[in-house]
Amino acid sequence: MLKASIDIDLLRDSITALSVIVSEVRLKVKPDGISVKAVDAANVAMVIFDLKSEAFESYQADETEVGIDLVKLNDILGIVEKKTLVDMELDMAAQKLHLNFGGLSYTLSLLDPSTIRSEPRVPQLDLPARVVLNGQDLKRAVKAAEKISDHMTLGVTGDIFFMEAKGDTDQVRLEMGTDQLIDLKSGEANSLFSLDYLLDIIKSAGKANEVTLSIGCDFPILIEFDVAPAVCHVTFLLAPRIESD
Amino acid sequence: MLKASIDIDLLRDSITALSVIVSEVRLKVKPDGISVKAVDAANVAMVIFDLKSEAFESYQADETEVGIDLVKLNDILGIVEKKTLVDMELDMAAQKLHLNFGGLSYTLSLLDPSTIRSEPRVPQLDLPARVVLNGQDLKRAVKAAEKISDHMTLGVTGDIFFMEAKGDTDQVRLEMGTDQLIDLKSGEANSLFSLDYLLDIIKSAGKANEVTLSIGCDFPILIEFDVAPAVCHVTFLLAPRIESD
Amino acid sequence: MLKASIDIDLLRDSITALSVIVSEVRLKVKPDGISVKAVDAANVAMVIFDLKSEAFESYQADETEVGIDLVKLNDILGIVEKKTLVDMELDMAAQKLHLNFGGLSYTLSLLDPSTIRSEPRVPQLDLPARVVLNGQDLKRAVKAAEKISDHMTLGVTGDIFFMEAKGDTDQVRLEMGTDQLIDLKSGEANSLFSLDYLLDIIKSAGKANEVTLSIGCDFPILIEFDVAPAVCHVTFLLAPRIESD
Repeated sequence: MLKASIDIDLLRDSITALSVIVSEVRLKVKPDGISVKAVDAANVAMVIFDLKSEAFESYQADETEVGIDLVKLNDILGIVEKKTLVDMELDMAAQKLHLNFGGLSYTLSLLDPSTIRSEPRVPQLDLPARVVLNGQDLKRAVKAAEKISDHMTLGVTGDIFFMEAKGDTDQVRLEMGTDQLIDLKSGEANSLFSLDYLLDIIKSAGKANEVTLSIGCDFPILIEFDVAPAVCHVTFLLAPRIESD
Repeated sequence: MLKASIDIDLLRDSITALSVIVSEVRLKVKPDGISVKAVDAANVAMVIFDLKSEAFESYQADETEVGIDLVKLNDILGIVEKKTLVDMELDMAAQKLHLNFGGLSYTLSLLDPSTIRSEPRVPQLDLPARVVLNGQDLKRAVKAAEKISDHMTLGVTGDIFFMEAKGDTDQVRLEMGTDQLIDLKSGEANSLFSLDYLLDIIKSAGKANEVTLSIGCDFPILIEFDVAPAVCHVTFLLAPRIESD
Repeated sequence: MLKASIDIDLLRDSITALSVIVSEVRLKVKPDGISVKAVDAANVAMVIFDLKSEAFESYQADETEVGIDLVKLNDILGIVEKKTLVDMELDMAAQKLHLNFGGLSYTLSLLDPSTIRSEPRVPQLDLPARVVLNGQDLKRAVKAAEKISDHMTLGVTGDIFFMEAKGDTDQVRLEMGTDQLIDLKSGEANSLFSLDYLLDIIKSAGKANEVTLSIGCDFPILIEFDVAPAVCHVTFLLAPRIESD
């Protein structure tokens, strides 16, 4: 059972975050909120998503698991303006999700959760460096890197956090010291990542006031931020690329 | 003979409405205004368009008939800003339409009206239900339907006007009661229409404060509204699709 | 040697002007500024570009010549907002141009100037008519001409400057008298030009308050304007097309 009401922007932002990794998702519905753990088809990136019941205008739920087509849901939500409430109600007998927003009733057939890849095990990572920065700064560096390469390095050297990308004849680098960062835990860190994934991730992370990066040397990166402060938290785990030169 | 001056926005909105149905149009010019009746190539939709002489800043005309290429005319009008006056003058001897706007002189060769399909006979329809609603509400429902299907149902049941579309796994429905409608004449009505046409029609109708729909059961729909209040009226007649399931 | 600082908008506008003609450019750096003379691959258009040292916030340079990939440079400058300063420094030993803007360091490898076509000789032209007009007026006429043809005529007849384009069935003409022009030196002038080039040129020239056209009969046209008043001047020279009817 699920009967809830949520701001359409928060719902859309949540779908944007999940869509980085999967187009069909297995939602874990519980009395205290909704969560997702999912890995992308290439096994390169993982999302750990947590939407607390406090994020909703109203929320009543029993424990259950449902499969949702995020593409269809996102598409239909696109027609409505900001500041609309979305009422949602699960009909487990008919295997439907009913949504009401902007005067429209929208009914989406649920997917059989067993046809969607099951929840991954989240690895324990002990990453030496941690950087907290504004999402806009991360976004600008990723956008610049995209202009010249298809991958970029993120790392920490001394008290400096850096992002760097190299093209055939050009190179771009952003360095940020402790005065420009929100927080820095120094440590040896230098890993290369695919821009395909980072470009998708900054669609969400670029809006966050604080993004926390945990980085190692040729190790996965953790990218954490709140979609909505205190009530909707997302962690991306992205595997490194191995430099080939 | 025609010598007239008109606001460019009203001219552009008129062309938008006519372009739903035809790209080449036979204009009936009379001393009291300009009118068009036209059917699309597939015989699915008809437009009845009426632009009164009062819609013009100045207007002088004898009775005549001219063929116009709407695509070319619309294209050239696109380069000028809003709130410009367009002066137009027919040169029947040279078979040209001269337009002056924004400091530009534009001369368009007329099409031979006999090469354009002649005016259709407008059928007499006795449709049981009539709904008057805001163009924006119609637009939102059509836009939502587009996300999941290529056709949609419009109908009246009791005191409720409804629009509905069904996809393979999802469904969207908008219901409006008498409190949300501008007016409702109740009657049995339920017909299915192609979204291709409705999407084009709402480009015009979506801007209107009042759109009047006359609906029957598996019958054509009449969609009527003013492009400009009291001086430019458009009626679309759209044939139903027959449900195939 | 070159060490300079410049407003990003002026740098972008300069690249836009040069990109009409070439994608790789040979910059002549001198103590009093930077200049370019270049011809396009088809030998139809030439640009004479002059950016004075006064255009920079700070400027120090020895005489040198460098090759720059304008496409790469323009692409990376696109990620930053207006009103940013760009610091640039040449490293001739490493053959690199270093740029700093918006917290980013960007390093671009220089091209070997000897691989770029050398500076053209600028022909002496004695053109009978000269017209000074607002860039917006030129832009509107070129945009209108584009709708109906791929070339347009510019000319002077008596005290009237005119621009004209002819399509298969339509024609557009803009006439401007001395009251609408900033200045006019009357003279016999009537030449046809390719709209491909004019459309690119008005991306720059359309922003200028004053554009000076020097025109003859079936002769090249000179199009001159300031990218920034008094400190950045551009002249385009465009060869005529010969009418084929």
